[in-house]
Amino acid sequence: MADLCPRFEGAMGIISKRWVGLILFELLNGAKRFSEMETDLPISGRLLSDRLKMLEKEGIVERNIYSEYPVRIEYSLSEKGKALKPVIQEIQNWADSWMPSVNTEKSKA
Amino acid sequence: MADLCPRFEGAMGIISKRWVGLILFELLNGAKRFSEMETDLPISGRLLSDRLKMLEKEGIVERNIYSEYPVRIEYSLSEKGKALKPVIQEIQNWADSWMPSVNTEKSKA
Repeated sequence: MADLCPRFEGAMGIISKRWVGLILFELLNGAKRFSEMETDLPISGRLLSDRLKMLEKEGIVERNIYSEYPVRIEYSLSEKGKALKPVIQEIQNWADSWMPSVNTEKSKA
Repeated sequence: MADLCPRFEGAMGIISKRWVGLILFELLNGAKRFSEMETDLPISGRLLSDRLKMLEKEGIVERNIYSEYPVRIEYSLSEKGKALKPVIQEIQNWADSWMPSVNTEKSKA
């Protein structure tokens, strides 16, 4: 147990940060612009920006700048980020089987 | 995306709560007494107690009382809790592959 703790804890520390799961979930479907993610996710632009910066720093998300006019900036998952797909999928599987499907009104965080 | 959100978010809300991952990790190895968990995990008894109560309320952890003398109380995973095994395993896999194996000194939370 003790040997496994530091890495597992480190991984949990990233994944368990609020909204990170949803952001990963969103990006597993492919690269997205900031504005698309802002529309899709129930969080404020500021929080989204904070989380994307954190995930970029962790090497999970990549920020790609395309020199078009106007400039196009897209976020996508790195290899490290794509490797989280089984985690997200298993959470989804569990949620499908065990979470009640109540549709509650959500306001922006 | 919108349809998947509420359940996925609900699942993330539980799993992502701090220390829940480690508690699940610990209980996947079998039933444990409170004192054993307190020894194994880097968190205070009070936090551990809070989290176990929350997980019991969510139907993930079961509290079993054995009428011995002195009374024996053990915590174990319910079916809903055991169903989280693939999630924990995939987090562990990811951590093994992608997290640096730095051993830092941890103090009790």
